[in-house]
Amino acid sequence: MITVLTGGTGGAKFVDGLRQIVPQEELTMIVNTGDDLLWWGLYASPDLDSITYMLAGKLSQERGWGVKGDTFHCLHAMGQLGQPIWFNVGDRDLATHILRTRLLASGKTLSEATAEIATSLGVRARILPMSDSRVETRVLTPAGDLSFEEYFVQRWYQDPVESVRFAGAAEARPAPGVIESIRSADLVLIAPSNPVTSIGSILAVPGIREALRECRSRIAAVSPIVGDAAVTGPAGILMAAQGFAVSIAGVADFYHDFLDLLIVDSSDATAAEALRKTGMSVHCTATIMRKPEDRIALAKSVLQAAMQPPASQGQLERA
Amino acid sequence: MITVLTGGTGGAKFVDGLRQIVPQEELTMIVNTGDDLLWWGLYASPDLDSITYMLAGKLSQERGWGVKGDTFHCLHAMGQLGQPIWFNVGDRDLATHILRTRLLASGKTLSEATAEIATSLGVRARILPMSDSRVETRVLTPAGDLSFEEYFVQRWYQDPVESVRFAGAAEARPAPGVIESIRSADLVLIAPSNPVTSIGSILAVPGIREALRECRSRIAAVSPIVGDAAVTGPAGILMAAQGFAVSIAGVADFYHDFLDLLIVDSSDATAAEALRKTGMSVHCTATIMRKPEDRIALAKSVLQAAMQPPASQGQLERA
Repeated sequence: MITVLTGGTGGAKFVDGLRQIVPQEELTMIVNTGDDLLWWGLYASPDLDSITYMLAGKLSQERGWGVKGDTFHCLHAMGQLGQPIWFNVGDRDLATHILRTRLLASGKTLSEATAEIATSLGVRARILPMSDSRVETRVLTPAGDLSFEEYFVQRWYQDPVESVRFAGAAEARPAPGVIESIRSADLVLIAPSNPVTSIGSILAVPGIREALRECRSRIAAVSPIVGDAAVTGPAGILMAAQGFAVSIAGVADFYHDFLDLLIVDSSDATAAEALRKTGMSVHCTATIMRKPEDRIALAKSVLQAAMQPPASQGQLERA
Repeated sequence: MITVLTGGTGGAKFVDGLRQIVPQEELTMIVNTGDDLLWWGLYASPDLDSITYMLAGKLSQERGWGVKGDTFHCLHAMGQLGQPIWFNVGDRDLATHILRTRLLASGKTLSEATAEIATSLGVRARILPMSDSRVETRVLTPAGDLSFEEYFVQRWYQDPVESVRFAGAAEARPAPGVIESIRSADLVLIAPSNPVTSIGSILAVPGIREALRECRSRIAAVSPIVGDAAVTGPAGILMAAQGFAVSIAGVADFYHDFLDLLIVDSSDATAAEALRKTGMSVHCTATIMRKPEDRIALAKSVLQAAMQPPASQGQLERA
């Protein structure tokens, strides 16, 4: 059994590789919900949707979000009605938001709504939101205190970031199954998602970081940082804003209290060697997923490295 | 100033003719909301939408409902998610339901939401829901107590009708402007809509029927019944269920306490002559709107007949 902590973009690509080499029944996803937003009065959960669509084989590979082949007629009509349209909701994607809103309004939890949607779409992996409570990632910028989607999608992450906080996290509890899935996993993987706003939000839910620290199985993370920058998105900017180095060492530092193995890109071999000297196990492989087959190759390489006995890891790397 | 009481289907066609010969600023629509329903948790108002889309030039002429050229991708996705899809909501149409739901949730009245949507779509006529309170047309059948849309759309009006009632009507008040628009109109028109469930629901709101009775201007209705059947839909079935004759005499009877002039199809000339003997003014013209130009011709004929001094009406007809 493998438990994966993930956000939506790089995470979904990584999950695409995993789902092709591991039976879905053996996968549990713990998904960031810090980006969730009420959009047109509907409850949208971008990362839950990306992971669900990916596991259902419905995620648009071109866009990396939303449903394959979707149209945007409702969005355009909303624009004609003078409504905001900066958050792109496709017509097919909209069905998910409408159903989730309806299920939540009927008293179901986000976990229950997520499971119902995933099952309807034929997903066999377990998809868990990090929490059933609202934890909202807020990005403080000179332009104001923004939600993550305002910062990321509406304003194209152009604002200097002063700080990031997770509103509601202190009072939140992990969703049912989250702690158990970490405890009982044979392997825990941290997807190459934004450490601050995709994984950091999950770690901000009381109990999750503690469960990872106490976890007896190995915990391996794939670095979303290659060289001195994020592969995509604002991970670098946000790590710097939080006082972390924008490097694989910064990623290792972010996860320092529970990480057993860091998977980094082969181009970071020198930095990897330096990091090994601090005692961290590091595995170098091709982590940038440009083509579909890159995803499978990365997943295979991660599983292979993670399954090696820890002691021999350094030797293997040097061999 | 012309005030029109109307439902969605035949009413929208009639309004299409009117809007082409009368400046929209001179038109006030009082629209049936007895068919309104919560669909996927969204507030849908089929007749308000048909009239709004028609006045905006956006109504699908082929279907007679929904937005011209609309697609149904969200509907299909809802079907894949195991949700009911018998009520056809197009992707562009959906924007209206989402916005209306949002406006109502923010505390606006249905009148305010209707005006905001109409203005956004460039409608210059005034569109008023019959009431801002919920009045629900319920159709009692052997299969159960159905909402109008369940009876009409979901079950294709195949159930024998035992009775019709307007739940909530006793406590409802006319929406702001409804009574005033009847009182101040130079002419009141009743569209060729279903007398029972499109106009009867409006008349069930306390105060509206009284305002029509006391109205000093002429009130003319276009009969939706031609011969012994409705031009479209279940008007005949529902009139019979309510104890009215399915004929132009039944329509005159339905509106007997306020109607000044009944417009009937030329094919009903004999029945018209009989009706005139009871004292009702009747004008014969082509009322079946097959082609776009039929709509304009009917609107012109109605206005011309309604503008004639009442006394000379019978003479004109006989001339």
